[in-house]
Amino acid sequence: MQHLLTLDGMPRATVVELLDRAQHFADLDGDADALHGIAICTLFFEPSTRTRMSFQLAAQRLGAHVLNFDVSTSSARKGETALDTMRNLEAMGVRGFVVRHHDDGAVAHLAAAARAGTALVNAGDGRSAHPTQGLLDMLTLRQAKGPDFATLRIAIVGDVKHSRVARSDLHALRCLGAGDIRVCAPAALLPDDGTLDGVRVTHDLDDALAGVDAVITLRLQRERMQDGLVDSLEGYHRDYGITAERLEGAAPDVVVMHPGPINRGVEITDEVADGPRALILRQVANGVAVRMAVLERLLAA
Amino acid sequence: MQHLLTLDGMPRATVVELLDRAQHFADLDGDADALHGIAICTLFFEPSTRTRMSFQLAAQRLGAHVLNFDVSTSSARKGETALDTMRNLEAMGVRGFVVRHHDDGAVAHLAAAARAGTALVNAGDGRSAHPTQGLLDMLTLRQAKGPDFATLRIAIVGDVKHSRVARSDLHALRCLGAGDIRVCAPAALLPDDGTLDGVRVTHDLDDALAGVDAVITLRLQRERMQDGLVDSLEGYHRDYGITAERLEGAAPDVVVMHPGPINRGVEITDEVADGPRALILRQVANGVAVRMAVLERLLAA
Amino acid sequence: MQHLLTLDGMPRATVVELLDRAQHFADLDGDADALHGIAICTLFFEPSTRTRMSFQLAAQRLGAHVLNFDVSTSSARKGETALDTMRNLEAMGVRGFVVRHHDDGAVAHLAAAARAGTALVNAGDGRSAHPTQGLLDMLTLRQAKGPDFATLRIAIVGDVKHSRVARSDLHALRCLGAGDIRVCAPAALLPDDGTLDGVRVTHDLDDALAGVDAVITLRLQRERMQDGLVDSLEGYHRDYGITAERLEGAAPDVVVMHPGPINRGVEITDEVADGPRALILRQVANGVAVRMAVLERLLAA
Repeated sequence: MQHLLTLDGMPRATVVELLDRAQHFADLDGDADALHGIAICTLFFEPSTRTRMSFQLAAQRLGAHVLNFDVSTSSARKGETALDTMRNLEAMGVRGFVVRHHDDGAVAHLAAAARAGTALVNAGDGRSAHPTQGLLDMLTLRQAKGPDFATLRIAIVGDVKHSRVARSDLHALRCLGAGDIRVCAPAALLPDDGTLDGVRVTHDLDDALAGVDAVITLRLQRERMQDGLVDSLEGYHRDYGITAERLEGAAPDVVVMHPGPINRGVEITDEVADGPRALILRQVANGVAVRMAVLERLLAA
Repeated sequence: MQHLLTLDGMPRATVVELLDRAQHFADLDGDADALHGIAICTLFFEPSTRTRMSFQLAAQRLGAHVLNFDVSTSSARKGETALDTMRNLEAMGVRGFVVRHHDDGAVAHLAAAARAGTALVNAGDGRSAHPTQGLLDMLTLRQAKGPDFATLRIAIVGDVKHSRVARSDLHALRCLGAGDIRVCAPAALLPDDGTLDGVRVTHDLDDALAGVDAVITLRLQRERMQDGLVDSLEGYHRDYGITAERLEGAAPDVVVMHPGPINRGVEITDEVADGPRALILRQVANGVAVRMAVLERLLAA
Repeated sequence: MQHLLTLDGMPRATVVELLDRAQHFADLDGDADALHGIAICTLFFEPSTRTRMSFQLAAQRLGAHVLNFDVSTSSARKGETALDTMRNLEAMGVRGFVVRHHDDGAVAHLAAAARAGTALVNAGDGRSAHPTQGLLDMLTLRQAKGPDFATLRIAIVGDVKHSRVARSDLHALRCLGAGDIRVCAPAALLPDDGTLDGVRVTHDLDDALAGVDAVITLRLQRERMQDGLVDSLEGYHRDYGITAERLEGAAPDVVVMHPGPINRGVEITDEVADGPRALILRQVANGVAVRMAVLERLLAA
């Protein structure tokens, strides 16, 4: 495994090994030294302080040297191509790249041009994939519900169409053999690209939540209003917002996840987001552990 | 002591312990390892490269992992609340937060919501407090004048009304039992909120400086002109600027301090700022030592 | 040697020692610990992510604490002078400054005011000098062509007038005794300040390239079009662009260099830039090694 670009098609054994190693780092709660002296660069063509910092902490905990290159705000890029930027950093000795890009496939395109010893981690490209988010969601589910995904009933609620998180979650859930996956969103926020093959789709939130063990709530980008895909935040919340009342139809020990940042009162109420069913901060914590496992796997000698 | 929010009401013994430890770090002039593997995040809602770097160096010298989050320029915050930002970073494993905020009380508000193991340092909130500045000013005074504050005569000159530096200095000076504190400013720049209780107030700079051992000059924000609180920089300098001539009425070994950045020729002349009485760069040096002492106290195992 | 401001007038023995030490670091391809605990600040009044990162990696590989201060985008500078900024960072304990500035001589001006223990590295000032680029170009040439510069024929092609790279290359080539240096550019891009003393100048690219062992191509700043110094990118490329055809007149083992970032299809074709004669990424790799050698020389105990 030279790069981590997607979870689509990853062998189940590899996913399980990464989750096991991430659990080790989550239990360790401290520094390892696996990447001592290795240089890693976060290369973000689309800004995200939160994801960047999670990777940065993971790399620091492994003893790596970390560089941060926020290409979107850099005044210094001077028209250089993404490929030339990567090749220059490779030449400086950077061994690992954590890349976020607004275009589908952009990270794979860079990876195809990388040197033999270089590793790329896709930190989100377009709507395609965000594999470390998929892994951290699986780790969080496994901690809460145990390792047998076949008996799990899971609802994914919200803007699946534009969500790389949803796609990576679906890749991972299928890989781990999740038994019952439902997707719930207004029609305008559902993809028509094969993403939902084998998944039960419903527009009725109560139907989606009936008896589920876990709800994965997706972020609603506010620009969906301007796109005309959503009429109003109030309407969206009424029909698709996760509330304590709506969760009454779910399993008694249902857990609720969200990739953040939360639009409070839109996708989810404060009561749920800050309540005992929410695993949202656990997801964030697992993010560092998963990224340590991934960086170690790709870059340790 | 979980957090450092203000010097107001801090026991004198605690202040002295922090100053003693800071003096140790000032003498050491090198690295310690007290915070090895601890993650610290500077979280600045109001930008300040200088203060951020002082904290960053202090944290690096203690062996910590440092993250910098300049919230004011982050394009990635996406409407997330300050509280959610802190909680996410806590979940990632950040143990210490160095927070600057434009609103009075904002740092205390965050601290009230922090986890048991989390420590916040107020790096300046609104007009309220800037406790590490207060401590570094006391360390600087103690180095110059010895540990007996009771015999000291001190003038604070300038915009006390809008100054968190002045408030923290007054808290610390009272705590250490300073005998004679005078405040000098135009009426429009004097607070009416109890800040000056027990302090002698004068609008006459010569009166304020008569026989003093130390002058603490405050920065004049240029927006005070737009507020109409100050007529002109020239007029301010004539009436309240610290010059060699004005200092003739002070004690022969008077020292002059300023929190920086200096408006040269406004609050202070070049001759004084760069002359032998100025302790301004000593204050900057002591800032790193004081911040090491504070971070160690709050975060070391 | 307290600072590295220019290669102009540097003794040949010093240049050779720095190149030898840089070659050691290039061969090492890993971390040293020569600057453990030393604080270094990149202080860029003109932004350049690429050069900053090269210095940052060099400093990290030497074990230093690194601070980055992008003065051009800092909202915190508040009108402070460059000199006050440097003095404050010095007071915080910063020992090394890597300074880039848009004004000729600005770095030397700061260096003249620095403390005895402080070291400045000029990372490019105005059109004057970029000494680490000059050194890394010499290291790259030496690796490709051996240590005897007297027999080398070298063409420098492009905007010498505005190029600090060209000036530092010329300083270094003269210092190392290069036997045959030719400069080729349109008249409007040639300096009239003595830079070219002793150098053969030609406007004919074929003449410049005849039999040369190495071509140093310079970046064409797009603002030269607005200045009216260049008519069009197409015309520039036709007359001065380095192509495979043009290189047929050079020595069979000619090498091609460029300081980056490349304007592909302007100064150089993709075919040449990505082909076997190009040493462009080798230059980038050598940049880190050269900067390690320089920082160690100036700052190691």
